[in-house]
Amino acid sequence: MAKNINIGMIGYGFMARTHSNAHRKVNNFFDLEYRPVLKTVCGLVEAEAKAFADKWGYESYTTDWKKVVEDKNIDLIEICVPNNMHAQVALAAAKAGKMIICEKPLALNVAQAKEMVDAVEKAKVPNLVSFNYRRVPAVTLAKQLIDQGRLGRIFHYRANFLQDWTISTDVPQGGMATWRLDVKAAGSGVTGDLLAHCIDTAIWQNGSIKCVNAMTETFIKERKNVETGKVEPVGIDDACTFFCRFDNGSLGNFESTRYARGHKALYTFEINGEKASIRWDLHDLHRLQYFDHRDEGIIRGWRSIHVSDGDQPYMKKWWVPGLQIGYEHSFVHQIADFLEGLATGKPARPTFRDALETQKVCEAVLTSAKTGQWVNIPS
Amino acid sequence: MAKNINIGMIGYGFMARTHSNAHRKVNNFFDLEYRPVLKTVCGLVEAEAKAFADKWGYESYTTDWKKVVEDKNIDLIEICVPNNMHAQVALAAAKAGKMIICEKPLALNVAQAKEMVDAVEKAKVPNLVSFNYRRVPAVTLAKQLIDQGRLGRIFHYRANFLQDWTISTDVPQGGMATWRLDVKAAGSGVTGDLLAHCIDTAIWQNGSIKCVNAMTETFIKERKNVETGKVEPVGIDDACTFFCRFDNGSLGNFESTRYARGHKALYTFEINGEKASIRWDLHDLHRLQYFDHRDEGIIRGWRSIHVSDGDQPYMKKWWVPGLQIGYEHSFVHQIADFLEGLATGKPARPTFRDALETQKVCEAVLTSAKTGQWVNIPS
Amino acid sequence: MAKNINIGMIGYGFMARTHSNAHRKVNNFFDLEYRPVLKTVCGLVEAEAKAFADKWGYESYTTDWKKVVEDKNIDLIEICVPNNMHAQVALAAAKAGKMIICEKPLALNVAQAKEMVDAVEKAKVPNLVSFNYRRVPAVTLAKQLIDQGRLGRIFHYRANFLQDWTISTDVPQGGMATWRLDVKAAGSGVTGDLLAHCIDTAIWQNGSIKCVNAMTETFIKERKNVETGKVEPVGIDDACTFFCRFDNGSLGNFESTRYARGHKALYTFEINGEKASIRWDLHDLHRLQYFDHRDEGIIRGWRSIHVSDGDQPYMKKWWVPGLQIGYEHSFVHQIADFLEGLATGKPARPTFRDALETQKVCEAVLTSAKTGQWVNIPS
Amino acid sequence: MAKNINIGMIGYGFMARTHSNAHRKVNNFFDLEYRPVLKTVCGLVEAEAKAFADKWGYESYTTDWKKVVEDKNIDLIEICVPNNMHAQVALAAAKAGKMIICEKPLALNVAQAKEMVDAVEKAKVPNLVSFNYRRVPAVTLAKQLIDQGRLGRIFHYRANFLQDWTISTDVPQGGMATWRLDVKAAGSGVTGDLLAHCIDTAIWQNGSIKCVNAMTETFIKERKNVETGKVEPVGIDDACTFFCRFDNGSLGNFESTRYARGHKALYTFEINGEKASIRWDLHDLHRLQYFDHRDEGIIRGWRSIHVSDGDQPYMKKWWVPGLQIGYEHSFVHQIADFLEGLATGKPARPTFRDALETQKVCEAVLTSAKTGQWVNIPS
Repeated sequence: MAKNINIGMIGYGFMARTHSNAHRKVNNFFDLEYRPVLKTVCGLVEAEAKAFADKWGYESYTTDWKKVVEDKNIDLIEICVPNNMHAQVALAAAKAGKMIICEKPLALNVAQAKEMVDAVEKAKVPNLVSFNYRRVPAVTLAKQLIDQGRLGRIFHYRANFLQDWTISTDVPQGGMATWRLDVKAAGSGVTGDLLAHCIDTAIWQNGSIKCVNAMTETFIKERKNVETGKVEPVGIDDACTFFCRFDNGSLGNFESTRYARGHKALYTFEINGEKASIRWDLHDLHRLQYFDHRDEGIIRGWRSIHVSDGDQPYMKKWWVPGLQIGYEHSFVHQIADFLEGLATGKPARPTFRDALETQKVCEAVLTSAKTGQWVNIPS
Repeated sequence: MAKNINIGMIGYGFMARTHSNAHRKVNNFFDLEYRPVLKTVCGLVEAEAKAFADKWGYESYTTDWKKVVEDKNIDLIEICVPNNMHAQVALAAAKAGKMIICEKPLALNVAQAKEMVDAVEKAKVPNLVSFNYRRVPAVTLAKQLIDQGRLGRIFHYRANFLQDWTISTDVPQGGMATWRLDVKAAGSGVTGDLLAHCIDTAIWQNGSIKCVNAMTETFIKERKNVETGKVEPVGIDDACTFFCRFDNGSLGNFESTRYARGHKALYTFEINGEKASIRWDLHDLHRLQYFDHRDEGIIRGWRSIHVSDGDQPYMKKWWVPGLQIGYEHSFVHQIADFLEGLATGKPARPTFRDALETQKVCEAVLTSAKTGQWVNIPS
Repeated sequence: MAKNINIGMIGYGFMARTHSNAHRKVNNFFDLEYRPVLKTVCGLVEAEAKAFADKWGYESYTTDWKKVVEDKNIDLIEICVPNNMHAQVALAAAKAGKMIICEKPLALNVAQAKEMVDAVEKAKVPNLVSFNYRRVPAVTLAKQLIDQGRLGRIFHYRANFLQDWTISTDVPQGGMATWRLDVKAAGSGVTGDLLAHCIDTAIWQNGSIKCVNAMTETFIKERKNVETGKVEPVGIDDACTFFCRFDNGSLGNFESTRYARGHKALYTFEINGEKASIRWDLHDLHRLQYFDHRDEGIIRGWRSIHVSDGDQPYMKKWWVPGLQIGYEHSFVHQIADFLEGLATGKPARPTFRDALETQKVCEAVLTSAKTGQWVNIPS
Repeated sequence: MAKNINIGMIGYGFMARTHSNAHRKVNNFFDLEYRPVLKTVCGLVEAEAKAFADKWGYESYTTDWKKVVEDKNIDLIEICVPNNMHAQVALAAAKAGKMIICEKPLALNVAQAKEMVDAVEKAKVPNLVSFNYRRVPAVTLAKQLIDQGRLGRIFHYRANFLQDWTISTDVPQGGMATWRLDVKAAGSGVTGDLLAHCIDTAIWQNGSIKCVNAMTETFIKERKNVETGKVEPVGIDDACTFFCRFDNGSLGNFESTRYARGHKALYTFEINGEKASIRWDLHDLHRLQYFDHRDEGIIRGWRSIHVSDGDQPYMKKWWVPGLQIGYEHSFVHQIADFLEGLATGKPARPTFRDALETQKVCEAVLTSAKTGQWVNIPS
């Protein structure tokens, strides 16, 4: 019989839903030694915390996150609150000896991130940052193909994360639904929210980034703040483009924006190697595009791989070939791997320490955008 | 607080997983008056029934389906067993006054299907046949567009369901994994298994079929039967093509096979109307292709609609625009609609009576393939 | 220095343009022993014949096709006039000992086609029917892959030719621009105009068709005839669907219509073999889709082959990889192959005799549609 | 009757073929006051010049370009030789009062380009630079849509030009086939060869570029020079990425490489405006992707426009809807527009002066890549 892991969920927003769903489903599909139990959910507004608990089957709810962190019955703290809350919750949870799964980006800045890494490592608590896209099967498959050396020497890494939901001046900043536009809550705009995903995947697939050169822009300069009710300057980056050099000699080109009309969440990456290339696109996340130069010339072409077969990552756990899974499943895989890591002693990644690397790149990107200069990533 | 609906699941195979998952998830995402409770699962092999119950959280398990049907605590019988079992379970469940959700196709033949319709209608029990693809959001959206009259007069309806999993002569017939190749268990091959889906969707979207003309083929004439251990003649249709005329004057062209190399589960349909056309493809189920002739000429083209916005069917319940759902969600929608139908008194469809129409077309198709003649669909 | 082949062009419509362009270009791109010279063009209206001659550089023009056929200086007669004129021009040209290239379909019916075959074979004149799509490089490549045995046993052949240009009731019949809707000029509707292409390609790629079963429809029952000025019954088939059995045991499914909103000229075919499958689509004619089951499982997928490399059919003659050619080039390839055939003594195909096979299938399709019965193709 | 324009073609390589083909075809498809006559071709090797003349129907050939420039019978000089020859030929041709069509990039650097602009403007000779991709119908349509204001305020312009033909170390530099890898002949690598196209289109569509920030790389540091027979350092940029700011406030992201395995000539651009977005891709050059936010929400999606209708740019001159044209047609359109410009007095563009703007951006990009700094584009 599986051992229970009692979950304390901090937050009841969008990410709390994705994580709760993952906890509820994981043991139906994966054979694991551990089983998450939805114990407590915590949020600012009591009625909403209660409603969330009812909806998802949490045994209790509270508005005081410190209580959850200190609760003896809780094994694992889920941090699904705005970025400016990550550090304080994580530090307290580490101190209380809890396992931690934290939403991305890890922190508001590198200094804070380092403190968090130190805390979890000192406390020796299992820790994970929720860069969920690593665990979309097609993305995991891409990583496997790279690790198998199929691409050969890498020349180019290219990633975009394009959205269009903030084009209207009517979109406010601050509050529950739009805190991502408020620099105080979010720390940055697309860089921390979207490029952080691209950078995490890139480092995982292609190794460390050596130096970056960036440009950012804030297209809409002021927006109403729903908390203050006033029109205030917008402090985040609406768009960010950067190029970089990886340690392996390849060149990177990254771009993110919330002003690309027609793209809801178009996270794409492409890797060009000497022997083969790979492309992926979140809007059709169950497909991987693969070009292998070693294929016979007259029938060489980009292969559209429908990643739904039992021998492709994670897919044996789900349905049958041809039947696709979706966005939410990346979170199920994440918790499955985390629990598997507990059982095997080989922790799932990215850990807080891994996420610190992404934080360093994000910070360098923002610095470069301000100075107009190349910035090296500190080791 | 939601009222419990106690589920008795007959079967523990692939479809039992899709339905169990739907029951477990539906109230996390939909606001409903009713809540399914996974009470009992029933299957032939006790150890497997127990394992299934553990995996999915059923409170008990049994190997005797009659006990489940007669159990006072059970409200709803789920029929997720091979086709040749549908009728007997459904008749008993109706007699016992249980609600019934039955996997497709409804029955082995029209005579049996009629008996089942009579039984549920006489017993006045809520009933549904699991033609789940109706509830893929893009397919539901297609139906809405048709109902709004956007396509105008319909000229053509075209549907394919192409697979490739039985090409090898090593695939056996019979048994748990391959009963679909055994005519005794399945009743027919691709006609009942795959074309039944196409026909159900077609009638729903485009109205009744008047007459059909069909061709079938069995490419591999004998296969080992895993139950008898002997090589036996294959009684099912490996492939079936038919064309037809709909009551509305449009022409239909349907094809299904399990010998289309490269297609795992390629269910596609296309509808050509005077003003607009629609295409859909299960391999990228979250997209709908739409062409509207009323668009301005120079910028007219097929639109690739990423069906993930809140104003598109079912999608408000899930994540945010751009983040796709998958195959399993069609079953969640199905049970959500069924429960909603209980609350509102407007039953979800297709009911057994609706499914009888599909059964009639399937039978006519098989008859036509044998006789080489046009066959009218009886009213 | 190349030897001149003097061309007598009968017709100055759309097809006369495609053929004239081919004649003018072929020696710029292909190294050939022969060189077409645009000698004379013939058409009904003298001013238009003159304008055509000026535009394309014909040395002379006339309104009397018999003069052209009898002209000693003419080596090759191009028949680019409505279908009901093919036979008389071809018979006269054969009698006069001219080479003949005839637009498709060869004739109005099988009887006429046979007479034409007899005439050219008796006269021993080089002859070709312009089923140009065989010579789109991607289509030719498909044929090569089949001939190399890469697909293994063939299970299915599927072809569609979908258009939408006659949906409006305002489109008339008869006359220069719309003779294809007038059964007297065209002989049939989509069957002879569009399905003839599909059938020609299918027989070439997949061998003879044994028997067919068809359905046709005329959606708009009467149209104004631009020649008589009167509204008259429409005698052609607006849409035609048929399925068939090939000699090699595979099943065919063909459909054509001019009522498929959104498709301008969507000629597609797909061939499913035991080992591999192929798809092609005229709307993106420079691509071939290829799925090979022998590819390694985790990276297996449909390959989108951009047919523009020097080792792919015909492409070495054109530009560089990645730069596509278009529709008109299929006619250049046709005349190049025809001229090459003259030089080598291995005639290019399809000859009149080859086209007779397609004519037989077309006729059987129309007969089946009338009788509602399977019809065998006579040998 | 059309007036003759006598052509003197300098060069007999790839570009000379595209231009010769255009001259031969243009009057067959366009109604024009002028008609090009292929008078003389000039190249280094006499036998090859003769063969080219034979192939394309030039009346004569020579190995002395100065003779051609000074020939009284020549009206228009075509410069289709390596980049380091452009200036001297153009200056001489201008001096001789000839019209000039020059391949891109205009010159090796800005200083040279300015001299050329001065020369043609002083001589008042019609002049054009062959940025042919402007005249792919889908690209021209994109420009129309932008000019009509359909996109609204522009936020992003993104362009890539990806190839893979120089990945092997066996590819040499220098000589007829590979002068593009020799910095002395080419001036630069992908920047002048490929990004020049992207920059020309971008400025045309989106206005002037204000400042750039670039990174270049040479992956293979030395290659055999086919002229010297020695292995020599590679002086060109194998890859170049830059971002920039346009005068209209939008952000640009450009990348080009010859090391993107799987892409033969993947020139793509995407423009994101407040109201609509546009994408295009040279590998499927007959399609334009268009997203219009003003479309009704539930049926909003990227439209795949098959640019082959008579009301779309240039297409009325060719075939019928659905039948695509290819790469070479962009050159036909170019010469058609040039000749039309002669007749109307409104010169076709880009002129030498227009191309100077692109040259400035290319030079700034190369400077930025060297210095690691932002570089402003001089006005």
